Amino acid sequence: MTEKITKQYFTYGDSPNVQLLESGLELGPITIAYETLGQLNGAKDNAILICHALTGDSHVAGQYCDDPPDTPPGWWNFMVGPGKGIDTDRYFVICCNVLGSCMGSTGPASINPATDKPYGLDFPMVTIGDMVDSQKQLLNHLGIRQLYSVIGGSVGGMQVLEWCVRYPEMVRSAIPIATTMRHSALAIAFNEVARQAIMADPSWNKGSYYEGSGPHHGLAVARMIGHVTYLSDEAMRKKFGRQLQNKEDFSFNFGGDFQVESYLRYQGSKFVKRFDANSVLYLTKAADYFDLKNVENTVESLNDLSHKQSKFLVISYTSDWLYPTYQARELVQALKRSRQDVSFCEIEADCGHDAFLIEDSRLTNLIRGFLDGLATA
Amino acid sequence: MTEKITKQYFTYGDSPNVQLLESGLELGPITIAYETLGQLNGAKDNAILICHALTGDSHVAGQYCDDPPDTPPGWWNFMVGPGKGIDTDRYFVICCNVLGSCMGSTGPASINPATDKPYGLDFPMVTIGDMVDSQKQLLNHLGIRQLYSVIGGSVGGMQVLEWCVRYPEMVRSAIPIATTMRHSALAIAFNEVARQAIMADPSWNKGSYYEGSGPHHGLAVARMIGHVTYLSDEAMRKKFGRQLQNKEDFSFNFGGDFQVESYLRYQGSKFVKRFDANSVLYLTKAADYFDLKNVENTVESLNDLSHKQSKFLVISYTSDWLYPTYQARELVQALKRSRQDVSFCEIEADCGHDAFLIEDSRLTNLIRGFLDGLATA
Repeated sequence: MTEKITKQYFTYGDSPNVQLLESGLELGPITIAYETLGQLNGAKDNAILICHALTGDSHVAGQYCDDPPDTPPGWWNFMVGPGKGIDTDRYFVICCNVLGSCMGSTGPASINPATDKPYGLDFPMVTIGDMVDSQKQLLNHLGIRQLYSVIGGSVGGMQVLEWCVRYPEMVRSAIPIATTMRHSALAIAFNEVARQAIMADPSWNKGSYYEGSGPHHGLAVARMIGHVTYLSDEAMRKKFGRQLQNKEDFSFNFGGDFQVESYLRYQGSKFVKRFDANSVLYLTKAADYFDLKNVENTVESLNDLSHKQSKFLVISYTSDWLYPTYQARELVQALKRSRQDVSFCEIEADCGHDAFLIEDSRLTNLIRGFLDGLATA
Repeated sequence: MTEKITKQYFTYGDSPNVQLLESGLELGPITIAYETLGQLNGAKDNAILICHALTGDSHVAGQYCDDPPDTPPGWWNFMVGPGKGIDTDRYFVICCNVLGSCMGSTGPASINPATDKPYGLDFPMVTIGDMVDSQKQLLNHLGIRQLYSVIGGSVGGMQVLEWCVRYPEMVRSAIPIATTMRHSALAIAFNEVARQAIMADPSWNKGSYYEGSGPHHGLAVARMIGHVTYLSDEAMRKKFGRQLQNKEDFSFNFGGDFQVESYLRYQGSKFVKRFDANSVLYLTKAADYFDLKNVENTVESLNDLSHKQSKFLVISYTSDWLYPTYQARELVQALKRSRQDVSFCEIEADCGHDAFLIEDSRLTNLIRGFLDGLATA
C-alpha cells in the first residue's frame, strides 16, 4: 500500500521577524514546503527529519492524494513507509524542500514582496546552515523539540551534519550518507562548470528570465555535468558501454551515436522542465560553501555533543567519486575525536554517488537496524 | 640551448587524389602542419613520430626562429631535444598537427575549395585512422619507410595504437601513454557534455560563425569540463583545496570565491583565444569513435604484428581517471595475446591524466631507456 500524502506549506519570518542569514542579509517571509508520513506520538519523540539532495524535493515517499494511480511515488519510497527501513508505522517522518529551491519553498523564483516580481539574483545567498535554520523553524511550529533521527544523502547529508553542530541538543541520532564534511576542489569545480554553463546562456539574462523562456540550453548542459558525477566509470561501463543508439554503425555527425549521449541529453531536457536554473546556482553555491569547520564554534559544538552524545551512522559507497569514502572516514575520525558514538559502513556498489537513491536491502537493513538499536539503547 | 624550429606545411590530395575517409566521404586537398627536430640519417631509420593530444599542435619542442627570446618552448620541451629523453642528437623527430585541428592542418575552420568559405559543419567527420593516414602521407613525402618509434599520450596514444594496426610494417616500436584501446562511456560522456556546451551557444550558429564572434561562452565551458578531467581529485586538493581567491571570506555572490573556480575560468578564456570550437567538436568525436576493435581486421593485424614483432612500452598514471590504469592493462593483455614484446609501467603520480605533460624524470628515463634498448636489440 502506498501512503497518501499532502504537500503542506509553513510560512514564517514576516517583517520584522525575518531570518538572519549567514551572509548577514535578512530574508522573509519564508515558505517551507513539507510533507509528513506516519503519526507524531504524544511524547513527540518519534520524529525523523529526512533531508533531500541538491535538486530533490519534499516528496520523499508515497503518492499525493490527487495523483493518478500510476504516478511514481516519492524519491525514497523504497526506504520510507509502513514496515519499511524507516517505518512510518513507528516514526513520524518529515521532509521539507530546502530554502533556495524551487519545489515549493522560497527561492530565487519566488515573488520578492519588495518588488512583486521574482527575486532572481536579488535572492540572497543561502547556506546549508540557513536551510537548517529554516527546518528548525518548521520543527518549532510542529512542536518537536528533539529528532529521533536526522537522515540524508549527498547535500542532504551536509544538512544532517549541520544539524548536529548547530542544534546538537535536538539530534538524538544522525545518518549522513554519501556526503562530506567539506566540499572538495573537485566537487566545487564540477559545480562551477555547471554554473558557468547556465550563466553562459544568453537567455539566463543575469537571472531575470522569468517572463521569457529561461536558460534551457545552459541548464540542460549543467544537468548533464551533474549526471556524469552522479554515476561512476563502472556504472557507465555496465549501463552503457559503447552501445550505439538505434544504429548499427556510426552516424559521422553530431546527432549523438552512443546510448550514454542519448541518456545525458534526455536527463538534461527532462530536468529543464522541472527545475529552476537560478535555484541550481544558489544550491550548488550552498554546497560549495559547506565546510563543517566554518560553522561557528564547531569544535566546541562537537565537544558539546559529547556531553549530549548522539549516535551516528555514517555510510559511504565504494564507487562514489564525488564524495569518496576517504572523505567519510575523515568525518568518522572527526566525530570520534569529539567522542561521539559512531558506526561507519562503506557499501560496495558500482553505481556511483547516486547509489543511496537506488533500492538496496543493505542500505535499508543498515538504517532499520540503527533506528531499532536506538529504541533499545 | 633551445632548438630553433620552423613550422612547415605539406599539402596533398588534390582532386582526384583526395583522401578516402573512414566515413566513406572524401577530403582534399589536405594540408598538414608539421615540425621536425634533429636530422634524418642516410638510412632514414632514425625517425620518431610524436602524436599530440586532443588540442595540442605540432610545436612539440624548441622555439620558432622568429620567437622573442622569452617565448615558452613547445609542449614537450622537457622530453624532446639534444641529449633529452627523446634525443634529437640521435633521432629525427616529427610532430604534425592532426587532421581536423585548427593549428595549421586542414580542419573545419579551413577554406572549403568548393565554396571559398570555411568548411564549418561541411567538413567531413575524421577518425583517428584518418589522422594516421594523413601522417602516413607526410612520411611518404619525407621518404620515411619505417619509424624508429611512434610516441604519444592521450588522444596521441590512440594515434600510436592506430599506427600499429594500420601500418604495422612501418612501426619498429611504439609508446602509448595515458591512453586506451577504446573510449569508455565516461570519456564519451564528458566529451558529449563539452560538445553540448558549444552547440548550446547561440553564437555557434550550427558551425557557421567564422564571420562573427564565435561560441566563446560555450567553448570556455567545454574547456572547463575538459580541464576537470585532465586533473584529479588529489591534484585539485593539493593545488587548490578550498583556498579562496583574493578574499578572506565568502563573497556570497556568483563572481567566484575559490581558487579552483578562477583557475577554470582562466583556462576557459585562454583556450577561446587559441582554439576553434568546431575543431573541438570534430576531435572529441574522433576520440569517442576510437575503438581498436573497429579497425578493419584488427585481430588479423595484431596477429600480423607478431610476424613483424614491434616493441611496446605502455605507460599509465595512478591518478588518471580519464583513461585509468585498468584500461592500460587491457591494452597490455591484448598486445600480449598477439605475442608482442610489451613493457608496462604505471607511474605513481597524483596530477591526473595530464601527468605526461609535466616534467618528470621517471617518464623521461623510461622513454630514454626504451629507445636505447631498441638500438642494442
